[in-house]
Amino acid sequence: MTDEPQGLKITKLEPEKRQGLVVVITGHGKGKTTSALGMVLRAAGHGMKSVLIQFMKGDMYAGEWDGLKLLGDRVEHYATGKGFCGLLGNPYSREEHRANAQAAIVLAREKLSSGEYDLVILDEINNARHLRLVDTGQILELIKIRPAAVHLILTGRDAHPQVIELADTVSDVQEIKHAYRKDIEPQPGIDY
Amino acid sequence: MTDEPQGLKITKLEPEKRQGLVVVITGHGKGKTTSALGMVLRAAGHGMKSVLIQFMKGDMYAGEWDGLKLLGDRVEHYATGKGFCGLLGNPYSREEHRANAQAAIVLAREKLSSGEYDLVILDEINNARHLRLVDTGQILELIKIRPAAVHLILTGRDAHPQVIELADTVSDVQEIKHAYRKDIEPQPGIDY
Repeated sequence: MTDEPQGLKITKLEPEKRQGLVVVITGHGKGKTTSALGMVLRAAGHGMKSVLIQFMKGDMYAGEWDGLKLLGDRVEHYATGKGFCGLLGNPYSREEHRANAQAAIVLAREKLSSGEYDLVILDEINNARHLRLVDTGQILELIKIRPAAVHLILTGRDAHPQVIELADTVSDVQEIKHAYRKDIEPQPGIDY
Repeated sequence: MTDEPQGLKITKLEPEKRQGLVVVITGHGKGKTTSALGMVLRAAGHGMKSVLIQFMKGDMYAGEWDGLKLLGDRVEHYATGKGFCGLLGNPYSREEHRANAQAAIVLAREKLSSGEYDLVILDEINNARHLRLVDTGQILELIKIRPAAVHLILTGRDAHPQVIELADTVSDVQEIKHAYRKDIEPQPGIDY
């Protein structure tokens, strides 16, 4: 339920010019993927269609797998990866991780060019580049082939300066503190 | 739809100890409210229940008003405000803004104590405090009365140091650049 204000003039914005934005959410703090999920939710409310392609993620269940299904056909979600490459305990080779990330680039190119989506979200792609699973040039190419009406959202720590240069809106989510440093385990609904 | 990975062992985390976290998302960059919305979506996927109380917001339609409805009874949403106090063109007096924010504090206290919600999100409360529509002591009291199992998420720029001190996870979303500085109008799905 939404409890909308009563007896108040509600403004409904509509830009004179609609245009797609390139948005980068980077940095080491909590809130990058959740911010992208929030934009998907917001867009769904406007009746817009999103596709979320997650790089590296795919070996670990997260609430968004089911949460996004609640948005029905306004979102497609692809978890393409096998976990964080190089992270302690991850059993897959760099070659396997790179093959997955490269397949995700092909998928991203296809979705971006299809004209079927208002938002294309490439979650963790900046981090995948930092880990050399995708190349900087591949991200720059995706930005360049983006149709002007499509929003392209790129998340993940360590965004490349050239990617930041091409973006319209860039946030750096800095970690002031994080519960895991107090040895608090990841909690559902917040951390996954 | 969610395209889940095939032929891959999927880990389902479950913490030995579930505990509520106090999460603060502050800073001047884009991505605070959307991050909170993303946590609501994630929690809904886990079957958890959220209540989102927005301070100051309420006079302007945003996609989340309808997006959150798609999550059904897993979320309650209250837009309690009359816009950003002091912002050019906002016609309401400081007293009116403060009365609304104070009513939202009462609502927050009630929801937090009710035991009905897994997540309580107080959107823009840090900003409301900075604008002196709520008092620092009122936020500290909410943190202190929070049942241990409940996640409390506080968003908005200019979080108070004492609030940060009591929180478990704190992110500072810094603005590297923002489309509006290039005179690009707010775009649906991204900015509202």
